[in-house]
Amino acid sequence: MTNDQLTLMDDHDPLATKYADFELPTDIVYLDGNSLGCLPRTARQRAREVVEQQWGQDLIKSWNLHGWIDLPVHAGDKIARLIGAASGQTLCCDSVSVNLFKLLSAALMMQNGRNVVLSQQGNFPTDLYMVQGLGNLLGSDKCTLRLADDDDDLESNMDDDVAVLLLSHVNFRNGTLYDMKKITAQAHARGILVIWDLAHSAGVVPVQLDECHVDFAVGCGYKYLNGGPGAPAFLYVAARHQGTVTQPLSGWMGHQAPFDFDNKYERAAGISAFLTGTPPVVSLSILDAALDVFADIDMLAVRKKSLALAALFMQLVEQMAGQTPAMSALVLISPRDESMRGAQLAYRHPQAFEICQALIAHGVIADFRAPDILRMGFSPLFLRYADIARSVQVLTTIMRDELWRDPAFAVRHKVT
Amino acid sequence: MTNDQLTLMDDHDPLATKYADFELPTDIVYLDGNSLGCLPRTARQRAREVVEQQWGQDLIKSWNLHGWIDLPVHAGDKIARLIGAASGQTLCCDSVSVNLFKLLSAALMMQNGRNVVLSQQGNFPTDLYMVQGLGNLLGSDKCTLRLADDDDDLESNMDDDVAVLLLSHVNFRNGTLYDMKKITAQAHARGILVIWDLAHSAGVVPVQLDECHVDFAVGCGYKYLNGGPGAPAFLYVAARHQGTVTQPLSGWMGHQAPFDFDNKYERAAGISAFLTGTPPVVSLSILDAALDVFADIDMLAVRKKSLALAALFMQLVEQMAGQTPAMSALVLISPRDESMRGAQLAYRHPQAFEICQALIAHGVIADFRAPDILRMGFSPLFLRYADIARSVQVLTTIMRDELWRDPAFAVRHKVT
Repeated sequence: MTNDQLTLMDDHDPLATKYADFELPTDIVYLDGNSLGCLPRTARQRAREVVEQQWGQDLIKSWNLHGWIDLPVHAGDKIARLIGAASGQTLCCDSVSVNLFKLLSAALMMQNGRNVVLSQQGNFPTDLYMVQGLGNLLGSDKCTLRLADDDDDLESNMDDDVAVLLLSHVNFRNGTLYDMKKITAQAHARGILVIWDLAHSAGVVPVQLDECHVDFAVGCGYKYLNGGPGAPAFLYVAARHQGTVTQPLSGWMGHQAPFDFDNKYERAAGISAFLTGTPPVVSLSILDAALDVFADIDMLAVRKKSLALAALFMQLVEQMAGQTPAMSALVLISPRDESMRGAQLAYRHPQAFEICQALIAHGVIADFRAPDILRMGFSPLFLRYADIARSVQVLTTIMRDELWRDPAFAVRHKVT
Repeated sequence: MTNDQLTLMDDHDPLATKYADFELPTDIVYLDGNSLGCLPRTARQRAREVVEQQWGQDLIKSWNLHGWIDLPVHAGDKIARLIGAASGQTLCCDSVSVNLFKLLSAALMMQNGRNVVLSQQGNFPTDLYMVQGLGNLLGSDKCTLRLADDDDDLESNMDDDVAVLLLSHVNFRNGTLYDMKKITAQAHARGILVIWDLAHSAGVVPVQLDECHVDFAVGCGYKYLNGGPGAPAFLYVAARHQGTVTQPLSGWMGHQAPFDFDNKYERAAGISAFLTGTPPVVSLSILDAALDVFADIDMLAVRKKSLALAALFMQLVEQMAGQTPAMSALVLISPRDESMRGAQLAYRHPQAFEICQALIAHGVIADFRAPDILRMGFSPLFLRYADIARSVQVLTTIMRDELWRDPAFAVRHKVT
């Protein structure tokens, strides 16, 4: 691939203008948008505004004046558009873990007599931990976790004990994309409610929650949605369930009239009943502003580019493996079939940790997942084709010259 | 009270220098620090840093580089100093509501055979709602809320069914301060665990959690701690309980090795087991910076000044009532006895809402609590004695000239 060819690809990229919407560090290729998205200019501006003007000057009046009170629903509706949800079913609040607890409890309360939450070995651990925590609280006769192997046919695990199917739309390690429509229908046919975790798909893979008749979903604000570190998460409750379902984290923000200060909890109408405490206004405002980057974006174009970036990465790695034997030690564990893959690629290598550290030291930010996975995320709003070529070039040098052998790259950190 | 006298009081105020640590709107007296504290300069600076440098430039590396991963414990330990807690027992995370759910569940799991959570009618509603939510989930045989009248002798309600006593240290409406040491001891004598809600005392009333042998506590980051709108809350778990107690919101941040991505939850040692999801780093960093304002502060000096500010307010209101009969319609419902009062004063008036709106329009920010309470908070780090005199002057004009009758002041807002 020549530089001219890369320039041509970037010149013809319909999402190229989005690059300017981000504050990016110079001289870095950032392949970690699947872990923490980059800073949108709108978010930077809004952070100053909410801290310095709204909090600093307008103080308590801002709850009404600047619509702080509506932010969870307002930001939720911006996400709704990206995940195929009609308005009024999505909220921004709390963390994925806390939101999962609400939805798991709500779903189990709807499923009298069934106690199994079915998930996969490879699901993101916090999802599994929340089921375990709820099971400890309720007892295993009310809630117990069953884990299928990732390669198992899920359908064969869907028996009459299964109350809830809890799945990640995209596997966080290898990037496998699951067929939401098919699996949801299989579960429903057996009376099972479905919770999808969209952490690795929202904002990068087109999602059709309403069309797939999904019951519940959660997702992450700080990955492909670029909402900032620890941005509030989101949750989705299908409109058809909102009238009947209850959730146990019934804090004052989910009350129908929080400022009446009644002693008895009366849940709000609609999705707001899934709110709990006072929202983290600063973090939530930043996410709300970050979502404006998506306002004029077609998710199909996003998908197309993320697949093209990944395809280019794969192609160049394979090309280099022909010339640089050390490169062939990187074993792709993501599906080659695009229709079965999210927006990331994962390679296995015994020294994945050290290779990742070497990449970072050379300006290519990827990430490592224990025990031996090197993970690259292709966030198409701030990545250019030329960046991909550069990252493979750097990777090749590191592998060829065994730069990862530098003992500095073996130092383990708190967060890996 | 002459202007000279007020100037003298401000000149002799040992906390006067703290005024310059805040970014305050000009021409406003802010008596609502009990609802949302003002913006410390340290917090303003840190907000820019965490968004623009740490997120924008250092991106994912910041988890290690800027200690994001340690923030919940780090900020928790800054609060610990203010609430009489030895290090390692306090965490900043989630909301008060969510944290209460963790602690209520944990406490009930310790109290086999007892199912009652005892609280007061006048406790802050979200505290009561969380008990109701947990009761719905577990069934009333496992968790049921019993409410004593605020004037009731709590001890007479402490029977063998009571598992947990859940109380606010300072009542959010009238400012009554409860005797933590005495009540905790009474509860313990009957085998009852105690959860204190410090929302209206942390940062303004000296608290001695360890000395009072308190079991659990929660508190608010955005009131007297000035952590910003919707700042993360905090929770306290006495060291003696940490080895045995479990909590159901067992997310990955509470795992002993979150980045091993094991499927089985193994709780972290110590207080970290009470963490759940990814923390809202921006909001949490701002709170962490805001807490530095307290680094060199003696809580006894804070208490002394907040009482002196309130005493001045009361005294001036009573003085004005002698000259302006309309002022006597404001009926103080806070305890006159300082030892029984937090850092606020509450007055009852049938037109409290309109009076509050008129005050705000005239530059004195107080707040209203349904149905008829006008509430003033005396946050001593950014209030001067001269401000108090000015606020009473404005209030007197509003009452004397019935300025609150302006129909504009009757318009109800979403947040009151």
